[in-house]
Amino acid sequence: MAVKRIIPQTLKGFRDFLPSEKILRDEVIQRIKTVFEKYGFDPLETPALEYGETLLEKYGEEADRLIYLFNDRGGREIGLRYDQTVPLARVVAQYPNLPKPFKRYQIGPVWRAENPQKGRFREFLQCDIDIVGETSVMADAEIIACALETIKNLGITKAYMGINDREIFNNIDKKILISLDKLTKIGEEGVVKDLEKKGLKKSEAIEIINKIKKAKPSERLIKIFSLLKNNGLKENSDFIFQPTLARGLDYYTSTIFELITPNYSAGSLGGGGRYDQLIGLFSGKNESAVGFAFGFDRLIEAIKELSLLEKFQTKTKVLVTVFNQNLFEDSLMLTKQLRDNGINTEVYLNEQKKIDKQLKYADRKGIEYAIILGPEEKRRGIVKVKNLKKREQREIDLKEIIHYLGSQGKTS
Amino acid sequence: MAVKRIIPQTLKGFRDFLPSEKILRDEVIQRIKTVFEKYGFDPLETPALEYGETLLEKYGEEADRLIYLFNDRGGREIGLRYDQTVPLARVVAQYPNLPKPFKRYQIGPVWRAENPQKGRFREFLQCDIDIVGETSVMADAEIIACALETIKNLGITKAYMGINDREIFNNIDKKILISLDKLTKIGEEGVVKDLEKKGLKKSEAIEIINKIKKAKPSERLIKIFSLLKNNGLKENSDFIFQPTLARGLDYYTSTIFELITPNYSAGSLGGGGRYDQLIGLFSGKNESAVGFAFGFDRLIEAIKELSLLEKFQTKTKVLVTVFNQNLFEDSLMLTKQLRDNGINTEVYLNEQKKIDKQLKYADRKGIEYAIILGPEEKRRGIVKVKNLKKREQREIDLKEIIHYLGSQGKTS
Repeated sequence: MAVKRIIPQTLKGFRDFLPSEKILRDEVIQRIKTVFEKYGFDPLETPALEYGETLLEKYGEEADRLIYLFNDRGGREIGLRYDQTVPLARVVAQYPNLPKPFKRYQIGPVWRAENPQKGRFREFLQCDIDIVGETSVMADAEIIACALETIKNLGITKAYMGINDREIFNNIDKKILISLDKLTKIGEEGVVKDLEKKGLKKSEAIEIINKIKKAKPSERLIKIFSLLKNNGLKENSDFIFQPTLARGLDYYTSTIFELITPNYSAGSLGGGGRYDQLIGLFSGKNESAVGFAFGFDRLIEAIKELSLLEKFQTKTKVLVTVFNQNLFEDSLMLTKQLRDNGINTEVYLNEQKKIDKQLKYADRKGIEYAIILGPEEKRRGIVKVKNLKKREQREIDLKEIIHYLGSQGKTS
Repeated sequence: MAVKRIIPQTLKGFRDFLPSEKILRDEVIQRIKTVFEKYGFDPLETPALEYGETLLEKYGEEADRLIYLFNDRGGREIGLRYDQTVPLARVVAQYPNLPKPFKRYQIGPVWRAENPQKGRFREFLQCDIDIVGETSVMADAEIIACALETIKNLGITKAYMGINDREIFNNIDKKILISLDKLTKIGEEGVVKDLEKKGLKKSEAIEIINKIKKAKPSERLIKIFSLLKNNGLKENSDFIFQPTLARGLDYYTSTIFELITPNYSAGSLGGGGRYDQLIGLFSGKNESAVGFAFGFDRLIEAIKELSLLEKFQTKTKVLVTVFNQNLFEDSLMLTKQLRDNGINTEVYLNEQKKIDKQLKYADRKGIEYAIILGPEEKRRGIVKVKNLKKREQREIDLKEIIHYLGSQGKTS
């Protein structure tokens, strides 16, 4: 074994998720999965590493520069996945017998060698739903409805989906579209300034903005809106026609959408749309697809900002203390009984530590209950149960302990 | 967008988990987590990438050669984690305020540039539990008891833990130990041959084997065995003293254990022990630790080999077919009703496909129930429910449908 001392540090843009954070993330993932599966999406997992040629040249040069690319010991150019859509396209081509439409969800990390900045990480989780092999607008509506229900299941009630169709701005220059897309973020004045920088006159800029704002939804969008209403969703509160929405221009081929939470500072929680060309790059045949990806960190940030989910420091509900060596066996038996009844229980692992120290440990860890079983308690057939959050203590009959703790709510 | 056509392929040693496989894996992970949390372990997540110096020189040169190591765009030497114990050691040093003992579990992929062979992958999942900062044998016993209960919760009832203490063979040469460790695998004759190859006489080899087989458990082990018995575990069926067990010699400093399933062909399902030096490499102070890691692929293989868990092709329970465009809205409303009641439901996304095709799709996907809602059914206020596995069909009153499907067992 080596003896060199190493400085303990994480790479910039990478994060450790200590228990309290990881518990929240796991809870959010569980809630997301529940809705995805309710909508008939099945899980898929693909490797972290892919052939370089699989990853490259899918989203343009700028994206390619962000891929963690290297040569393995066999000299192959390989890389960490940049997103989960390219691996999906590969999977669809590689397993041609998958029943179509292929409805899958995938929740996993992706890696991008970005300059880390507030809210931007080099490793982050994406939560994707996609439907491959169905051109019908019903697929678009399913994706949108599922994304909206997911967000509600996280307690975020005020989110709406901004929806657009590329058809709306087919004859507008891409440079101008990139400015127009910022309308909800920087306002009309901001966009005008942005367009002026790009060489337009102020009057021209205003005219373009007014023209796009007056645009009417396409036939496709009218059908999608009608389907969403059938699904119980309301125009202008759950979804809205947003003719200036122009994200993913290199990528989306018709419908484009973005999930916005007005009362969350960073705004967008994810985006999606229909992309009818990417899959074909691998499969060699036209294969339509529509999907949505949640930015998981944004979700977590919004949930924290809006205080929507209770945060727990630990999944453990009870610490059984150990009074002394003689009573250790009793504490162990009680621990086993609690666990056998599905109660997350830690037993203090050192019978030589004073009860005070044991209680302090439980408190620091955020464990709600501590049980004391000393000689006096044993004689009387009871235990002392301390609620460390409420600073209360009760005597509970040993026979009642499962019932008592079981009825005190779950840790999660 | 690029037009180059790419061959869809996964890297050797890497795997896609299509829905049916991923569903099984998720179910197994859930069962593992449940037990880990019941034993008071909290979840931790660390990044896939670490500084090269964090990963290197921890398990010897051979291991170092297996690390996926490369330089990022900033010229830093970085690598994919080789296991989850080194990141744990880094975390413990980096966050000195974590309450001790620190009991954490971590379930995540690790990467090793091995030559792929049957059952060996370059990306594979590890499920770890560790207790850091507690020298008491109670910690060893907790880890062993938790691992054994985990395996039972997966339906693997015949597993036992082989347990040893380095003290037993402190005066035996490492070369010889490596041979002795194979005793359960290749038998006495095999070990004798192995030792002969290493230059020992046959008589010497037999003598060493007999001597080690007659070894008595150390004081530490006697205490651990007593604790395990307190926990309701039985010597010789749940755990066994195995004086020839000598795995992880560069790593474990006292207790060593290995989880064996005799009726599963590959034998070992994971291993662990006490390692009191690794953490200190980062923290600079002595910090004892004991842990266990399940080889997740072994678990999955054993579960399949022993047919312990039912395998599902999909998480979706019902396909609601769409009879025609006029009745599409009714199908959508029914779908919404099923989903609102927590039933995983897919609605067929193309109203122009014939019902036969829609049923065939459900069947290929492995969806158990298909619902038909045609004009005749609508008039009578019923639906036709086909059980595609049993090839049965029933008419169910629309008002009864939730109750009927809800009572037909869960998909998972």
